[in-house]
Amino acid sequence: MSKTLEFFFDYASPYSYLASAQVEVLAVRTGVELRWRPFLLGAVFKATGNVPPISCPAKARYLFKDLAHWTQFLGLPPCRFPEAFPIPSIKANRLGLVAAEQGLIAPFSHAAFRAAFVDGKDLGDGAVLEEVARASGLEPGPALARIENQEIKDALRRNTEEAVARGAFGAPTFFVGEEMFFGNDRLMLVERMLRGA
Amino acid sequence: MSKTLEFFFDYASPYSYLASAQVEVLAVRTGVELRWRPFLLGAVFKATGNVPPISCPAKARYLFKDLAHWTQFLGLPPCRFPEAFPIPSIKANRLGLVAAEQGLIAPFSHAAFRAAFVDGKDLGDGAVLEEVARASGLEPGPALARIENQEIKDALRRNTEEAVARGAFGAPTFFVGEEMFFGNDRLMLVERMLRGA
Repeated sequence: MSKTLEFFFDYASPYSYLASAQVEVLAVRTGVELRWRPFLLGAVFKATGNVPPISCPAKARYLFKDLAHWTQFLGLPPCRFPEAFPIPSIKANRLGLVAAEQGLIAPFSHAAFRAAFVDGKDLGDGAVLEEVARASGLEPGPALARIENQEIKDALRRNTEEAVARGAFGAPTFFVGEEMFFGNDRLMLVERMLRGA
Repeated sequence: MSKTLEFFFDYASPYSYLASAQVEVLAVRTGVELRWRPFLLGAVFKATGNVPPISCPAKARYLFKDLAHWTQFLGLPPCRFPEAFPIPSIKANRLGLVAAEQGLIAPFSHAAFRAAFVDGKDLGDGAVLEEVARASGLEPGPALARIENQEIKDALRRNTEEAVARGAFGAPTFFVGEEMFFGNDRLMLVERMLRGA
C-alpha cells in the first residue's frame, strides 16, 4: 500500500456521515490505506472565516432535502437530526481519537454517525457516548475518562490545525498526498486521483 | 414528454459551465425537456444573504483546483478565467434570453461559457458578445440591440425572482417540478428523480 486517503471529518457534520458510508469501500476498491481523522469543524470555520450552510436560511432549507436525496441515493436510512443544533461534538471527536488508539475508529465512527443522524440522539450526552462506545467495542468507562486527557485534547487540536494549514475550510475534507478534495460529493474525483488518472 | 428539467444558471458561474456540458445528454437519456433559464447570480446572492465561494480565501484557493479536477473528470479543456472577476455577466445573460427567443439558447450558452471559461474572454466586452452571438447563429447587431429592450431586462429579472422564490441561493440550480437541486455535483440526483426512482 503506497497511497493513503486521509478523511478529515466531524461527528457533527451530516455530509461527513454520508462520506463515512462510502470511504471504506472506496479504499478497498483502490487498494489504499484509509486514515480517519476527526477534527473540530467549528474551529475550522472560525479559523477560515467560512460559515456553516445553516447560516443562510435558503441553504438551510435545502440542506434537509439534499440529505434526503443523498440517503435515498446511497441506500441509507432516512436522516433524523438531534434537537441540539449545532451538534456539540467535541467529546465525540475526542472519543473517536481514543477509539483510534485501540484500532476501533471505523466501528466507532459508524456508531457515532448513526446515533446522531439515524437515531437523532444527542452526541453531547454522556449516556449516548457510553452507548456508542460500547457498541463499537470500547470499554465505556476508561474510554470516556480518557477524553479528558490532555494528550487526546491536543491530538484533536492538532488534527484541526493541520487540516486548516493544508487548506481545509469545511467537512468532510479528503487528502491524497497534498491534493485536497472537499465534500462527500467529490469522492468520484478522489477515486480518479487514487487510480492515478 | 411529460417532465421538464429547469436549469437556472449565470454565464459568470464556472459550475454552471460544468453543468452546461452535462445537461443536454442527461435530458436526452431521460427523455425530458430541458429549459435553459439564465438568471442573475449576484441578485440571487443579494436576495438570499448567500455569499460567493470566492469570499472565503481558503474556498477561493480550492475553487481553482476543484475546477481543474472537474474539467479532467468530464473531459473538458482546462479552465481559464477572465481577468475581470466577478465576471460582469448581465449582458450575456440578457443575450441568452434573446437567443432563447430564436431557439438558439443551447448553442449560445455553449459559446458564451466557452468564451469565458476556456478562452478566458471578458463577457462584459461588447466585441466578445458579438463574437459569441455570431458563433451561435444570431445576427449580432439586432441581438445586441435587443438586450437593451425592457422586455428582455424584465425577463431576466423575473427568472431571478422566480428562482429565489422557489428556494434558489446559488448557481447552477435545477428544478424537477418543485424539487430543487443545487450544483453541478447533484446531476446524478436529478437523474435519479427524472427516472422516477
